[in-house]
Amino acid sequence: MNNFVYEIPTKVYFGENQLSHLGPELSRFGKRVLLTYGGGSIKKSGLYDRVVAEIEAAGLTLFELSGIAPNPHIGSVREGAKICKEERVDVLLAVGGGSTLDATKFMAAGACVDFDPWRFLSEEAPIERALPIVTVLTHAAAGSEMDCGGVISNPETQDKIGRMAPPMLPKVSFLDPANTYSVGAYQTACGAVDMISHIVEVYFNRDQDLQMLDGVMESLMKTIIHYAPIAMDQPDHYEARANLMWASSWAINGFVNGGKRQAWSCHPMEHELSALYDITHGLGLAILTPRWMEYTLDEGTLSKFVQFGVNVFGVDASLPPRDAAKRGIELLSGFFFETLGLKSRLGEIGIDDRHFALMAKKACGGVTLPGFKPLNQDDIEKIYRMCL
Amino acid sequence: MNNFVYEIPTKVYFGENQLSHLGPELSRFGKRVLLTYGGGSIKKSGLYDRVVAEIEAAGLTLFELSGIAPNPHIGSVREGAKICKEERVDVLLAVGGGSTLDATKFMAAGACVDFDPWRFLSEEAPIERALPIVTVLTHAAAGSEMDCGGVISNPETQDKIGRMAPPMLPKVSFLDPANTYSVGAYQTACGAVDMISHIVEVYFNRDQDLQMLDGVMESLMKTIIHYAPIAMDQPDHYEARANLMWASSWAINGFVNGGKRQAWSCHPMEHELSALYDITHGLGLAILTPRWMEYTLDEGTLSKFVQFGVNVFGVDASLPPRDAAKRGIELLSGFFFETLGLKSRLGEIGIDDRHFALMAKKACGGVTLPGFKPLNQDDIEKIYRMCL
Repeated sequence: MNNFVYEIPTKVYFGENQLSHLGPELSRFGKRVLLTYGGGSIKKSGLYDRVVAEIEAAGLTLFELSGIAPNPHIGSVREGAKICKEERVDVLLAVGGGSTLDATKFMAAGACVDFDPWRFLSEEAPIERALPIVTVLTHAAAGSEMDCGGVISNPETQDKIGRMAPPMLPKVSFLDPANTYSVGAYQTACGAVDMISHIVEVYFNRDQDLQMLDGVMESLMKTIIHYAPIAMDQPDHYEARANLMWASSWAINGFVNGGKRQAWSCHPMEHELSALYDITHGLGLAILTPRWMEYTLDEGTLSKFVQFGVNVFGVDASLPPRDAAKRGIELLSGFFFETLGLKSRLGEIGIDDRHFALMAKKACGGVTLPGFKPLNQDDIEKIYRMCL
Repeated sequence: MNNFVYEIPTKVYFGENQLSHLGPELSRFGKRVLLTYGGGSIKKSGLYDRVVAEIEAAGLTLFELSGIAPNPHIGSVREGAKICKEERVDVLLAVGGGSTLDATKFMAAGACVDFDPWRFLSEEAPIERALPIVTVLTHAAAGSEMDCGGVISNPETQDKIGRMAPPMLPKVSFLDPANTYSVGAYQTACGAVDMISHIVEVYFNRDQDLQMLDGVMESLMKTIIHYAPIAMDQPDHYEARANLMWASSWAINGFVNGGKRQAWSCHPMEHELSALYDITHGLGLAILTPRWMEYTLDEGTLSKFVQFGVNVFGVDASLPPRDAAKRGIELLSGFFFETLGLKSRLGEIGIDDRHFALMAKKACGGVTLPGFKPLNQDDIEKIYRMCL
């Protein structure tokens, strides 16, 4: 059992109509605010107007950067960091989903250095400081509102790289489930898969850890499995949106990790898919995860798969272990591809095998991914092929 | 579903041999440290020497206050606050269990005001500031290492009063499961009951809240029920001690509350018992809780008791609801009085009914305790009688 340090100081306002606290919270950090967002959805929903009204009521000076794309690009990060420097911005306010939040984190870090922020990703240049970040979340998925990580794409190099650094942890996040009512069924489904994948990346781990955290992870997975279809069917179901929203934060904020060394497997494989084909992250994860499970299932990993099947999907614990394990994987596949209605094969979304060798090499960085079952380039390529 | 604000900035070093971080962490807050502790157990275990060595190695100036009692007295609080003022202490370091930590919190607050710190308890005098607090935990029970509350006794008035205030939240807590190896079987059992009671006080609640948090609470209760007997039987079982320790923090740090207004019921009833008879808090809770459950069970509360029985104790969900509910309560009683071996009746520990009327009046403050089932003075007296 490994030691760990737990520290998540993000303050969260959870619930409806909490934006009256936005002005005072921003004012703690200064007067000059850079508001970042993606497309026009926050204008259509009225959230943009409500946020701007609070900023103006607090007497703050507003700068804006919009157009942050899903799978956010380094171009937006560069632009945001430049505005921060030129306009002497005190605090960044990200309004959106994981993409907007992730990009804003690297803007906040980029504002504190003199070099190109891509170097944070390409060569792990040190992230020692960042301007303070406040978020208003509009999509439950990435958990970026309560963690210190982000993933940035570089279309020029076809790279998509993630990085965590404590200075990028949001100071304050506003989580209003009603702000996710406008998330469509497909994106709601992809968000659910992303959350489950964040948990799977911790849960399936050979490091021995606290049993209580396994129980928490199983509860989170059951919560997501229960509420995602409800939110898809009834987009303004507050209870469903609230459970999904808070689960998304706790799936990845570090609490469930305890002392486990995180063993990212499906995420790096997926990042290569979405870097090259710009597919939705959650869709890529849905296609990869059950195949990764099938590939990973062996005598050494069996008992954990049995635990997963029994505790998350209620599989009969008296089944022979291998049957129980397989049944759990089947039920997860059924959840992704039938209940959530996601496409189940790469072939169905126009992806063939021509780049698999290169993607596999990049996913593992040319070495072996540690993790639940260590995966080398050849293993990863085989998993991609299982997804065709 | 109520809104809530989540904010738990305590930094936790979890695991063995983390004390090398103690000096640097204390130094963040200043040079002059007041070390507080209870009896001689930390000297016997060697923890005192290790802590003092780290303080000296960091070049800090050490002051000491020992003798903090279980059910800690306001006298210790007054003494500690006085030392802080006279010696211009920068940071308090509490080494011990919930009693030492609770007392230290009010010393830290008392150091910042000119009035008697008992007024924090007796008349809710404002707690606007406190000196920074660092803790080294030696007993998993109260959760004081990661919450902002404490309970103080006043033997002169026979009062035992709790209070929460954000400035009293520890800045840093060191949780080393090995530091609880020396906790005896009886105190381990009482600690487990305290943790379960903290969860019960939130779980049984009529406010509708996030289902995911019910799942987390059920996981925590199952964790405690599983590991407490192991720790009693094998005091140096690291895995058991670790699970109990981290569960104790999460049972009461506020996460599981979500938007529920906390409905303290058994705790105020118990505080009257231990204020008058100085019994162990967890023992009082063990005796009271099943009777409170029996008294509280009615048509309006039935479904929650069924959920508790099924999800925590694996009661057969196909039983008639009232039978399933009763079975859950029986199994909790069996855990407290058979598995943990605690005394089950007030009569067995020398408590008779002579003060029940006064205790009931004080427990509810002369009004009606809100909560899962509102309890007036008459209700509380009846519950005390059920415990005889």
